[in-house]
Amino acid sequence: MEPNTVEKPSVTMLGLGAMGTALARTWLAAGHPLTVWNRTPARAAALVPEGARVADTAAQAVAASTLVVVCLLDDTAVDEVLADTDLVGRDLVNLTTSTPAQARARATWARSRGARYLAGGIMAVPPMIGVPEAGGYVFYSGSRALFERHRETLRVPVGTTYVGEDAGFAALHDVALLSAMYGMFAGAAHAFALIRREDIDPAALAPLLADWLVAMIPAIHQTADQLRSGDYTRGVVSTLAMQVAGTPTFLSTAEQQGVSPELLSPYFDLMRRRLAEGGGEEDLTGVIDLLVR
Amino acid sequence: MEPNTVEKPSVTMLGLGAMGTALARTWLAAGHPLTVWNRTPARAAALVPEGARVADTAAQAVAASTLVVVCLLDDTAVDEVLADTDLVGRDLVNLTTSTPAQARARATWARSRGARYLAGGIMAVPPMIGVPEAGGYVFYSGSRALFERHRETLRVPVGTTYVGEDAGFAALHDVALLSAMYGMFAGAAHAFALIRREDIDPAALAPLLADWLVAMIPAIHQTADQLRSGDYTRGVVSTLAMQVAGTPTFLSTAEQQGVSPELLSPYFDLMRRRLAEGGGEEDLTGVIDLLVR
Ligand SMILES: NC(=O)c1ccc[n+]([C@@H]2O[C@H](COP(=O)([O-])OP(=O)(O)OC[C@H]3O[C@@H](n4cnc5c(N)ncnc54)[C@H](OP(=O)(O)O)[C@@H]3O)[C@@H](O)[C@H]2O)c1
Ligand SMILES: NC(=O)c1ccc[n+]([C@@H]2O[C@H](COP(=O)([O-])OP(=O)(O)OC[C@H]3O[C@@H](n4cnc5c(N)ncnc54)[C@H](OP(=O)(O)O)[C@@H]3O)[C@@H](O)[C@H]2O)c1
Repeated sequence: MEPNTVEKPSVTMLGLGAMGTALARTWLAAGHPLTVWNRTPARAAALVPEGARVADTAAQAVAASTLVVVCLLDDTAVDEVLADTDLVGRDLVNLTTSTPAQARARATWARSRGARYLAGGIMAVPPMIGVPEAGGYVFYSGSRALFERHRETLRVPVGTTYVGEDAGFAALHDVALLSAMYGMFAGAAHAFALIRREDIDPAALAPLLADWLVAMIPAIHQTADQLRSGDYTRGVVSTLAMQVAGTPTFLSTAEQQGVSPELLSPYFDLMRRRLAEGGGEEDLTGVIDLLVR
Repeated sequence: MEPNTVEKPSVTMLGLGAMGTALARTWLAAGHPLTVWNRTPARAAALVPEGARVADTAAQAVAASTLVVVCLLDDTAVDEVLADTDLVGRDLVNLTTSTPAQARARATWARSRGARYLAGGIMAVPPMIGVPEAGGYVFYSGSRALFERHRETLRVPVGTTYVGEDAGFAALHDVALLSAMYGMFAGAAHAFALIRREDIDPAALAPLLADWLVAMIPAIHQTADQLRSGDYTRGVVSTLAMQVAGTPTFLSTAEQQGVSPELLSPYFDLMRRRLAEGGGEEDLTGVIDLLVR
């Protein structure tokens, strides 16, 4: 330990909802000077005992630090909160969930206001913030210079993964991963529905389901390899034709168990369409092309 | 090692397609006397150099061993192949993919013909047979006595998981796990579609996707716990209301990227239905009840 430790970079936080508050606490705990502002002042006042300085207005908060982190409900709130602030020379990091198009537009807007801009997509829930072993992280995209400059500060609350200069890429990666997760949850929901009226303990099915899904994860790497090469037959084990032949068993089983097939049949429909187009010897990868207009 | 090792139990195999042949080879390699029959005789003859005895008819094959393993295309083929065989005193193990109802009917039929019956659902592809580290296994259900008696023989080609006396349970577990897998694949397909026209390498997305899905697997155990307790708010982190509020971002992003939402929207529709019914403070588990009629 040095007797005179260098002061940590100061941070401004706008937005102290569940997520903003969790982030703010980790910077305070790590000894970063922190200026906060929130529309409802009580949430800012709550952080004073932990060392936060409360700004009266968003403009004053923005003026207090070069690094300005925004974590609000949505892009409309960002618009309202930053309207009367002077962003010249600021390093603006926006952790508000957005679409890629919103993020790109916001990046252009921020640059026109004289700021550098970094967009974030948070792959964590508040209880994971400040808990490195929980494995959460934020996708960042936009200004690489901003990211490099504040790298150490940004990694205080949660891990960081920089995915490119395009400000929309953080949101795109965020949405891609969460969309895939909802697909997995939909599949698991169908599985649990199948046993709902049987004398089978869901807690006995769960580990079998979990282990099976983990075992099938390598297929994702194979899909990526096939997409890159353009050869969807590469390394195929069960062809699309074989898999389509198996689908009636899945649909009949759902019917026998009184379970709606609505979460499964859209994927099976696409498998059949690709088969009809001649993809019988391929893996399932051709379905992806059918989704893209 | 005993100087006189006990002879291994003999096995009869009906059906030597890709899967039946893979299974047969492991029993031959392990030193089990094996009698085989296949509709197309060449596939049986191919196993003679490895020590298989070829039966001229299915009836002769069935007569050759107490343990009779069937691995045919579908239940109709089982019907045809076993029509003129004497099953009295046989231990019939049917690894042909079936629905739970087909398996239950086949069990009743087999018992009426004087056989004990065990149904199997194979959670493996042929290259995983005889390769313990590949992690494949067969769900078995039906006669526990049969399973216990032949346990050692059945575990020669691939792992075994016994799931109950109900002959339909093996198929039900098989279909449940594979259905969940297709859900996961559908989610991953949507994710890859989102980046299809962007300058993002699918092989860079794949590990992020894979790690994220693995990190989300514990939700399956939480779902099981909620189903058992009937309390769908138990341990909830992101409520259904919060998650429904997030869905427009997913749908707008899909639209911006020119991706059809057809694989995602059925799940989102169910989330919204459950929210409308008052499940806002719950986890996603209520969706399962909406699937069951
Ligand atoms: N919570 C999570 O699990 C999670 C996970 C990943 C990403 N995120 C993202 O993080 C962001 C914040 O989420 P959160 O959980 O903290 O949400 P939250 O608890 O609902 O907080 C919303 C914040 O936005 C402010 N706000 C809303 N509308 C505003 C407006 N028109 N003007 C000024 N301030 C406004 C609120 O101020 P008041 O206090 O005055 O209402 C509050 O500070 C969202 O974009 C969310 O998608 C959250
Ligand atoms: N392969 C896999 O990845 C896999 C994975 C899990 C479960 N399974 C299940 O295992 C079973 C066999 O699959 P497989 O891959 O071995 O299939 P396969 O290679 O297509 O072989 C089908 C077998 O069924 C026989 N057969 C079909 N119709 C018949 C009939 N009417 N009468 C007599 N024999 C008939 C075929 O005989 P011929 O040789 O005379 O055509 C052949 O032995 C299926 O139920 C399948 O769902 C397979």
